[in-house]
Amino acid sequence: MSDLARKTENPIRSIWEGCKSTPNPSKKLITLQIGDPTIFKNFLAAPEAKVALRKALDHDNFSYMSCAGLETSREAVAEYVNKNYKGLTTQDFQPITFNDVILTSGCSMALEMCFRVLANPGDNILFPKPCMGYSTWIVGCGVEARYFNLDPNKEWEVDLEHLESMINDKTKAILINNPGNPCGNVYSKEHLLNILNVAERHKIPIIADEIYEFFTFPGVQFYPLAALSKNVPILTCSGITKRFIMPASRMGWIIINDRNHLLDSVRKGLFNLAGRNFVPNSTLTRALPEILRDTPQKFFDDNSKALFNHSLSAFSILKTCDGLTPIMPKGAMYLMVKIELEKFPNIKNCLEFSKILLSEQSVSVFPGFPCFNFPGFFRIVLTVPEELIIEACGRIKMFCEKHYKHDGDKYLKSG
Amino acid sequence: MSDLARKTENPIRSIWEGCKSTPNPSKKLITLQIGDPTIFKNFLAAPEAKVALRKALDHDNFSYMSCAGLETSREAVAEYVNKNYKGLTTQDFQPITFNDVILTSGCSMALEMCFRVLANPGDNILFPKPCMGYSTWIVGCGVEARYFNLDPNKEWEVDLEHLESMINDKTKAILINNPGNPCGNVYSKEHLLNILNVAERHKIPIIADEIYEFFTFPGVQFYPLAALSKNVPILTCSGITKRFIMPASRMGWIIINDRNHLLDSVRKGLFNLAGRNFVPNSTLTRALPEILRDTPQKFFDDNSKALFNHSLSAFSILKTCDGLTPIMPKGAMYLMVKIELEKFPNIKNCLEFSKILLSEQSVSVFPGFPCFNFPGFFRIVLTVPEELIIEACGRIKMFCEKHYKHDGDKYLKSG
Repeated sequence: MSDLARKTENPIRSIWEGCKSTPNPSKKLITLQIGDPTIFKNFLAAPEAKVALRKALDHDNFSYMSCAGLETSREAVAEYVNKNYKGLTTQDFQPITFNDVILTSGCSMALEMCFRVLANPGDNILFPKPCMGYSTWIVGCGVEARYFNLDPNKEWEVDLEHLESMINDKTKAILINNPGNPCGNVYSKEHLLNILNVAERHKIPIIADEIYEFFTFPGVQFYPLAALSKNVPILTCSGITKRFIMPASRMGWIIINDRNHLLDSVRKGLFNLAGRNFVPNSTLTRALPEILRDTPQKFFDDNSKALFNHSLSAFSILKTCDGLTPIMPKGAMYLMVKIELEKFPNIKNCLEFSKILLSEQSVSVFPGFPCFNFPGFFRIVLTVPEELIIEACGRIKMFCEKHYKHDGDKYLKSG
Repeated sequence: MSDLARKTENPIRSIWEGCKSTPNPSKKLITLQIGDPTIFKNFLAAPEAKVALRKALDHDNFSYMSCAGLETSREAVAEYVNKNYKGLTTQDFQPITFNDVILTSGCSMALEMCFRVLANPGDNILFPKPCMGYSTWIVGCGVEARYFNLDPNKEWEVDLEHLESMINDKTKAILINNPGNPCGNVYSKEHLLNILNVAERHKIPIIADEIYEFFTFPGVQFYPLAALSKNVPILTCSGITKRFIMPASRMGWIIINDRNHLLDSVRKGLFNLAGRNFVPNSTLTRALPEILRDTPQKFFDDNSKALFNHSLSAFSILKTCDGLTPIMPKGAMYLMVKIELEKFPNIKNCLEFSKILLSEQSVSVFPGFPCFNFPGFFRIVLTVPEELIIEACGRIKMFCEKHYKHDGDKYLKSG
C-alpha cells in the first residue's frame, strides 16, 4: 500500500462505518450523526429538481462532455452565482463567466482539486479548528494540514492573531468554511473583511468552502468571500449537495475569482486537473441549469425556517442539561455542544461520551475528536424531525443527570 | 501551480479541446477522433438502461451512500462478473463477492485509485505502448510511467522480453489493456497466461484495464485476466462506459481479485482512497443492478456485429491506400493505421499527417503521437455510421494519392 493510501483516512466515514458501540436495544435509535437531511424524508430535494432530471434523462445520450463540464451548465452556474451575489459585492466586482467555472463530481472533488493545485509536498494549508476531515485529501500527498482556532465564545469567529501566527513561508492557502460545518457559524461582513486583510498582507489565496452558501437562519445574511475580496484570489467551492438537498447527486463546482490575474497559472492548473476526467454524471449535468433556475426561493426559505426551529428546540433543552453548553448556530444544519468533562468523572473524553450515550440512550452523535479535531465537544445534526430532536435531547438530558457530578462529588474523579 | 497540476496533462483532451487545425470549409467534417459511440446516435444505450434510470429516479432521495458504493449495487456487479466469467476461469477460481467490488466515478477514477494505491513517488508502473494517456493520473504524483512494446506485426501482442526488461525493483504494477484502446487487440488465453507468468515470476500485481471486456468481434473470445490468474493479484477496472454505451454516465468499478491474500494492505488502501468520497451519482448507482441484469445479450451482439462490419469496410479501403497499412482489430472500437512516413516527403510526422488531413479532407483522426505515445500511426474510431467511415476512408485514400511519392521520387525528400 502506498503512503498516500495509508495516510488517506476519512475520520467521519471510518467512525460511521466502523463504529463498534451498539445502541441500547430497549430504546429506538435516534441518529444525530450524519449530515444527510434526506434520511428521514422530512427534507427532500424540490420537486422541480426531479422534473429537471426526468427531462434531462429523456434527452441524454450519455455523451462525453468537456472535462471542465458542459458549457451551458457552467454558464448556468455563473448566472446562479451572479444573481445570488447581487447587492452583496464590492463596487468593482466583475461578474463570473462560464470560464471561471469548473464542474466537479461533488464539492469534495472541488476541494481536492483546489488543495492539489496550490500545494506541493512539504507545503501547508491552514484549516479552521474545528472542521471537517479536509486532511483526508491532503495528508497522503505530503501536504501539511495546519490549524487555526475558531472561538466558540465569539460565535466561532476566526482567532485572527492565531491564524496569522500559523502562516509561514510554506503556507499556500487558507481554507474558510462559511457557513460552517460543524459549528453553524455565519460570519459578519466585518469579520470576513478582517480575514481577507490577513490573507492580503501575506499574499495567500483563500479556498472558500461555501457549500452551505445562503443556507442561513431567517434574518442572517450570508456574504460570499469572493464578493467582498478586492485583491485576494478566492477559489470558491460549492454545489447542490446541501442547499438543494441532493447529497449524493455528486454535483459540485469551483468558481475561480481572480479579477487581478494573480492566479493565472493556478487557473491553468485547475483545468489540467480537470483533464483527469472525473466529471459529474451527464444527466445531472444537463439538468443543472433547470435545477438552479426553477428551484423556488420558498423551498430554501422553508428549509431555513424549519432548521431554525429545530435548532431552537435543541438549544432550549440542551442548555438545561447539567454539564453541557450548546452554542446556537446561525446557519447550516449543525449545532455544537460543549461538554464540561471535569463534571463527568466516569467519562474520559468526548469520544467516550458519545459511545456511552449511544449504548445507554440510543442517541448517536459525532464526538468533536476525532471527527472535527476538536476535543470536548459533540455535534448534533438538526435535520432529523423536530419531535425526534426533542426526544433525543431529552435523552441526552437524562444521560447528563445520571453522569454529572456536582462540585461536592468532585473528589470522585481524583479518586 | 503545484508540480502535480503542471504535469497533469491529458494528451487526448488537450489536443481535442485545443486543436488549432481547421477543416476544409468545402467538405463536411467527419470526425474519427473521439471514442464516443453516441455522437452520431447510431450506437446508444439500451432502452432497458433508461427504464432502469427512470425507475431509480422516481425512488431516489439522493441520500449519501457508503464510500465504496451502495452494497446492493456492489453485489449486482459481483453477480454480473461471476456470470460473465462462467466457463472461462481456472478450476479453483473463487467467485467475486460485493466485498471485492468498489464503485467509482467512472473507470478513470478506478484506474487512478489503483495507480495511487500501489505506487509511491519514485516507483514506476509499466504501460503498453501504444496506450491511452494513463500518465495523466500518475506523472504529476512523481510516479514514473515506463513503457513496454506491443507488436503491431503480431496482433499487438505484448513483447514479453521487452516487458521483462523494463521491470526493476521500483516496478509496482503492470497495466494490461485488453481488449485494447487504441489497437483493438484481444489477446488469446495463451498470451495472457504468458503475461501472467512474467508477473508471477517478478511478484508484480496486474492492473487489468478491461473497460472493453466482452466487447469483441463475432467469434473472438475475451478472457478476463483475473479468471486465468492463479497467484497474480489482479485489480480489474471496468464500468458501463463502453459495453453499455454510456460514456459520460460515470459509473466504473474496481474488482479486487486476490484469492491468496497477497494484497490485503492494498485492499485496505483502496477502501481508504474510496473515503475521499468521489462516489458515483446516486440515481445511477441505484439503477445499476437493473442495467446490468436487463440489458439483453442481443444489444451487445448487435453492437459487436456492427462494429465488425465497420472495421471490415474501413480496412478494405485503407489497405488500398498508398503508404498506409491498417491493422485489423479483434474488438473494442478502434483501428490503428501505420503510415510509411518515408513515402510522404512533405509530411514530417503523424501529427502533421493528421493536421493536414483535417485541413484538406475534413477528416479528423488522432495521431499516434502524442495521443498514444506511438509515432508513425493514426487511430480511427469505428463507431461513426458506416457510410461516413466509407466516405472518410475514401478521402484518406485521395489524401494519400496526393502526398505519396513513389520510390523514383524519393530524392525529393532529401532535397
